[in-house]
Amino acid sequence: MTRRLKGASSADTRSAILDLIRSSGQVSRIELSEKSGLTEATISKIVRALIVDGLVVEAGFAESTGGKRPVLLELNTASRYALGVSLDYARISLVLCNISGNVLHSHAVPGAGRSKPQTVIDRVAREIGKFLDKHGIDRSDVIGIGVSGAGRLDASGGVLRSSRQTGEWEEFAIEAALCEATGMPVILENDANCAALGEFWSGRVSTAHDFATIYMATGIGCGLVINGDVYRGASSNAGEIGHLSLDIDGPECFCGSHGCLEVMATPAAVVRNARDDRALWERLGLQEREGEDVRTSFATIAAAAMSGDESAESLVRRSAQYVATAVLGLTNIFDLDRIYLAGPGFATAGPIYLGVVRDVLERTAFMRKVHSVAVEMGETGPGAAARGAASVVLHSHLTPHHLRG
Amino acid sequence: MTRRLKGASSADTRSAILDLIRSSGQVSRIELSEKSGLTEATISKIVRALIVDGLVVEAGFAESTGGKRPVLLELNTASRYALGVSLDYARISLVLCNISGNVLHSHAVPGAGRSKPQTVIDRVAREIGKFLDKHGIDRSDVIGIGVSGAGRLDASGGVLRSSRQTGEWEEFAIEAALCEATGMPVILENDANCAALGEFWSGRVSTAHDFATIYMATGIGCGLVINGDVYRGASSNAGEIGHLSLDIDGPECFCGSHGCLEVMATPAAVVRNARDDRALWERLGLQEREGEDVRTSFATIAAAAMSGDESAESLVRRSAQYVATAVLGLTNIFDLDRIYLAGPGFATAGPIYLGVVRDVLERTAFMRKVHSVAVEMGETGPGAAARGAASVVLHSHLTPHHLRG
Repeated sequence: MTRRLKGASSADTRSAILDLIRSSGQVSRIELSEKSGLTEATISKIVRALIVDGLVVEAGFAESTGGKRPVLLELNTASRYALGVSLDYARISLVLCNISGNVLHSHAVPGAGRSKPQTVIDRVAREIGKFLDKHGIDRSDVIGIGVSGAGRLDASGGVLRSSRQTGEWEEFAIEAALCEATGMPVILENDANCAALGEFWSGRVSTAHDFATIYMATGIGCGLVINGDVYRGASSNAGEIGHLSLDIDGPECFCGSHGCLEVMATPAAVVRNARDDRALWERLGLQEREGEDVRTSFATIAAAAMSGDESAESLVRRSAQYVATAVLGLTNIFDLDRIYLAGPGFATAGPIYLGVVRDVLERTAFMRKVHSVAVEMGETGPGAAARGAASVVLHSHLTPHHLRG
Repeated sequence: MTRRLKGASSADTRSAILDLIRSSGQVSRIELSEKSGLTEATISKIVRALIVDGLVVEAGFAESTGGKRPVLLELNTASRYALGVSLDYARISLVLCNISGNVLHSHAVPGAGRSKPQTVIDRVAREIGKFLDKHGIDRSDVIGIGVSGAGRLDASGGVLRSSRQTGEWEEFAIEAALCEATGMPVILENDANCAALGEFWSGRVSTAHDFATIYMATGIGCGLVINGDVYRGASSNAGEIGHLSLDIDGPECFCGSHGCLEVMATPAAVVRNARDDRALWERLGLQEREGEDVRTSFATIAAAAMSGDESAESLVRRSAQYVATAVLGLTNIFDLDRIYLAGPGFATAGPIYLGVVRDVLERTAFMRKVHSVAVEMGETGPGAAARGAASVVLHSHLTPHHLRG
């Protein structure tokens, strides 16, 4: 199942043809018919709509093979855009991409904080308007807005249910509200899936390759790309690696289970553990900053670990050991050979996590004698989620899924 | 990726059309063209080949919609068969199914034991010949032979690498050898995937539904059906749930990791634990039977647990707790809503495992407030793996996969 842009309809066949045009560079209608197995009449109809929509242009003629020289078609990369928004507590990022997935412009504004959802959405809509005006982009040229957020996705309602945001967001239909406020199609996606699709659209991964992106911000999630699309499961909430139990008799997690990655290894867990080490807590100046954002405190501990503070390094290494064991489980279950570590949680101490994960997989991955497992850093910068969200729009609109239901 | 019959070629489009005919009951060529989006010329060509192969028959005429009354096509369920073989240490089962997946005949012969692989394969080939002759089945009407075995699958070589069999099987190309010995197409599959596809072909699961089958024999594996096909991963070894670590500081597993499901909960683990309880071990008469097959000893312990022996029940319940926690992790990662427990390991104490797994999922599945997770018993009888193996043949031959690569 592919998530669809709220406010837009996108037929599978249409995106299959669009993808064929994109991957071919230049291609004639007859070749499209041959490659797709669809009739020329169907191809002509779809191509006509794509040209009207400005996604495809005619670009000269192919060599004649006897009769009339066939017209060549190509993707109109300059004409259309995707907008990505990361809806974060501390910071909201906006990113504008062209339909090849390249970032053209980006912008950051203050985060959602404790404002009411509708207030935040109205402000984001105004910021989007200013952002587009500033860069001279016509709204009708924006395919859609991708919104990235943390939490459980209620895909049918366009709601993101998160244990970390205030209750008001729990029932708030973000997709419908932002669609209403901007007049543009909107698609909501959780941050881990955004990161995975961002990786996919970065061109670093072949479309034929399955992979997982471990996304760490305050918590830990996972985006799974299978057969060229995000794997969603029964209710669009697949990838919940945070509640993998790594210690069956360990401390209870809010989910009801015990020893989950969430309680043992997330930035929030590391900050909790650091608080128990008063010497470390004071040494890092965290005492004077009580109540600050968990991610900022974690960044301080991660930076200390990287500069050789032994206590800090020990906490981060223990976290990395849990993350690595969860990644190992994921690797064994999916028989993965490619994994990315992405998100702001890996921004500072990424090398420690990367080293431990690689080491654990090299020593213990069940398939290590059959194939290696590549582990790489993905995007960890503050705009990564927004860029990923723009990729979700492109993916929804431009990539073929399920030519047959 | 779908595993292909060794010795047969099977085009994706052909199986897509065959599946359309099957799911339609009766259907005309024109309707097939409309439903598939393929040209009538393509449809005619494929249908001609299917009729020649005896898979499809013409079955009267549809109502006229103006011109000539179109000919109706339907599946020729009586004409072709799939054979399933479970290649087990203690017992080899043969099963013959029609192309609807119904078991027509079954037969069991002594297991592979410690015989040389080629000797076993030659014997299996002779048994298959006798089995087919006895039931008057022409070999050319058998689509192929599915072989089920325990271990890591080397799909490209048709080899099953298992830590439990003697070294000679490690490099033995089962598919090629049995194909050579029988003259029939052969496809090899691990037992968990066989069980999952058997479930799929039993008609209990809709083709649109993703699910997992936990398969317990001596060890524990898992078959994952995603988008109507077994999910295989990078090297056809996805579903390795046995090496999910459930106790990061637990005992070392042969895989190099710690606290794996394999060392904590498999029948082999339960038997090891029972041996440490001398009173139980003697009470169950296992002392006199030292050296017997692990599955038989486990069945004895499981039976005692079911009849209320407290020590035995405690061991089985602890095993079930680990199985349940692994299933919980799998459920959270895949956002599953349907799980089967299958295989001989669940034959005796299935109700205990089923109860514990259901209880853990009801209390702690991360998505429990969004949707329930159905857990049911799958096939646990001695012929289950062979029946599943026959399903693998049907699935490979009759089900559409990747109409577009």
